[in-house]
Amino acid sequence: MTTRVYNFNAGPATLPLPVLQQVQADLLDFGGTGMSILETSHRGPVYDEIHQQAIADLRELFGGSDDHAILFMGGGAQTQFALVPMNLLPQGRHAAYLETGVWGEAAREEAGKMGDARTLWSSAASGHDRVPGPDDYQVLPDAAYLHYTSNNSIMGTQYAAVPEAGEVPLVCDMSSDILSYPIDLKRFGLIYGGAQKNMGAAGVTLVVIRRDLLERCRSDLPTMLSYAGMAATNSLQNTPPVFAIYIVGLVARRMLEQGGMGAVAAYNDKKAGLLYGAIDNSGGFYRGHAQPGSRSRMNVTFHLPNEDLTALFVSEAAEEGLQGLKGHQALGGIRVSLYNAVTVEAGRALADFMAAFHKRHG
Amino acid sequence: MTTRVYNFNAGPATLPLPVLQQVQADLLDFGGTGMSILETSHRGPVYDEIHQQAIADLRELFGGSDDHAILFMGGGAQTQFALVPMNLLPQGRHAAYLETGVWGEAAREEAGKMGDARTLWSSAASGHDRVPGPDDYQVLPDAAYLHYTSNNSIMGTQYAAVPEAGEVPLVCDMSSDILSYPIDLKRFGLIYGGAQKNMGAAGVTLVVIRRDLLERCRSDLPTMLSYAGMAATNSLQNTPPVFAIYIVGLVARRMLEQGGMGAVAAYNDKKAGLLYGAIDNSGGFYRGHAQPGSRSRMNVTFHLPNEDLTALFVSEAAEEGLQGLKGHQALGGIRVSLYNAVTVEAGRALADFMAAFHKRHG
Repeated sequence: MTTRVYNFNAGPATLPLPVLQQVQADLLDFGGTGMSILETSHRGPVYDEIHQQAIADLRELFGGSDDHAILFMGGGAQTQFALVPMNLLPQGRHAAYLETGVWGEAAREEAGKMGDARTLWSSAASGHDRVPGPDDYQVLPDAAYLHYTSNNSIMGTQYAAVPEAGEVPLVCDMSSDILSYPIDLKRFGLIYGGAQKNMGAAGVTLVVIRRDLLERCRSDLPTMLSYAGMAATNSLQNTPPVFAIYIVGLVARRMLEQGGMGAVAAYNDKKAGLLYGAIDNSGGFYRGHAQPGSRSRMNVTFHLPNEDLTALFVSEAAEEGLQGLKGHQALGGIRVSLYNAVTVEAGRALADFMAAFHKRHG
Repeated sequence: MTTRVYNFNAGPATLPLPVLQQVQADLLDFGGTGMSILETSHRGPVYDEIHQQAIADLRELFGGSDDHAILFMGGGAQTQFALVPMNLLPQGRHAAYLETGVWGEAAREEAGKMGDARTLWSSAASGHDRVPGPDDYQVLPDAAYLHYTSNNSIMGTQYAAVPEAGEVPLVCDMSSDILSYPIDLKRFGLIYGGAQKNMGAAGVTLVVIRRDLLERCRSDLPTMLSYAGMAATNSLQNTPPVFAIYIVGLVARRMLEQGGMGAVAAYNDKKAGLLYGAIDNSGGFYRGHAQPGSRSRMNVTFHLPNEDLTALFVSEAAEEGLQGLKGHQALGGIRVSLYNAVTVEAGRALADFMAAFHKRHG
């Protein structure tokens, strides 16, 4: 008998139970093939259908246009910190970075090893409690690209709107909020994100790149480090991370069956509403870190009156099966990650716990 | 009820059934944590133990010395085609490549994008039916490294002994025979290989690098493309491919429990012996591709008298549950992959089938 906890991990994060159950059921014999999906050739028809269907379903979730290529890559989002400038930042040009925390800073630092990468705006002075508004920065029209982090998983901030970049290609690290709300893909030159928060398990990184940018990519790169190289073989240049892509496919299919991105976003809003409600109704016992206009629907961060109460909160919550709540060491306090597969039931259980904890210890 | 076939796939390849059964049993609730290993934080104690134990067990399988770092990386072995020269081939030096087929050629071509990569010896003139002997090449002492492919999975050739490189660091693409026989790690500067043939599932690449080479690596590389960067965090710079590493750990543990590399090699020799016996006892009906001294214990390649018989062989074998036997298009004929988890029972069933097929159609 399985007793599953309420899992608020920041990533790898909880997966939909029906997806896990299907993976489990198929593990020794996938679809009557007599072998596991883990043992199946990536050049055979069984995997090919999984691969193509996953891309088709992801494309539909991204709005259905064929103007962008959808790639599966290895190495996690941090590898993309390097591949973006390797591919898209030519000698003599610069790239502009909006830095709303550790990830944006690291992306710019890694890019700085490959070329001229500049901080255009940073929220460091206010402890990364906000994202910029349209008047806070101006991107130079000759920038090779503008890079931003759509959701800051450590600080709990998130852009409510896509930043303005004019004609400059917009590159977005969407690792912690990819496919959690509908986007207008036309606005983006390139999006990347690991699968392990909203889309599946660790081991595959999604890269969505506008096809005209593929033609502008540096052409002398090793194939596996080249977006054009990966696109040319539809991410089948070599053995892809088969199992991780299979899970992404199962998750994407389930999202479509549940109504697509609109339904996903509404569900996520509901969870975030429960948690921010619990903060806002606590009379200051729980203090949210993010400025109200920059609040993340994926990672809700807050502090308690002191460290002892914070530790007690984490341990009492764990006893009630509410796990993964300790904040990142860079911020401390509590972090509640509410990725797609976290249920409203889990969010409600935690909001109730917060009210009860406040009553007991406030 | 599961009916598992005999799976001779070239990779991804068959896994030990007890490993798959354990993965299946633990999939919804790993070790009483109330969550799947797919949902567990890579920074928490549960995953940390898996990660450290996998490295410790791999180290023991590699002979126990601590002179080499063991890294888990993404992107497959072909990404290493690029990272090896990025890290180890300085300006003004050259790297030497022994080319025994498609993979060695591709490794040199990718390295050629990063620096001076030279073909030192090639088996192309004889259809890649052999590996070089010690007198076939001489590596220049100022080479940055000597690169070779220990087993050619397409052609079915394998080095019976580690090539001589003098003081030049030896770099080995061991993708298709890693951990299938004992090696003397001291001979190697760097070994790399995807997990999906002998060690686990697709999604993680093992890199074993001598620690003094880490200090010689280019120091201005992006962290995720740098061996020194990956070693500095013990492959935990970012979220590693948790599930793929977990499976590698289960496979490694099982190999140790079954007696370690000596026992693994003896088991593999037995399987290869059955298949080469079936070829050699067929009076020329089955014609092996590899020269006898270069025969692979991992991939047995042979031709039948004509294309029709080849197609019939594949289809009749499949009907008897013997799958994955079609040769790679570069060679045609039949390829039997006998990686670690293929059982002697499977090898015997195929050898028996070969004799019966010969009797029916010879």
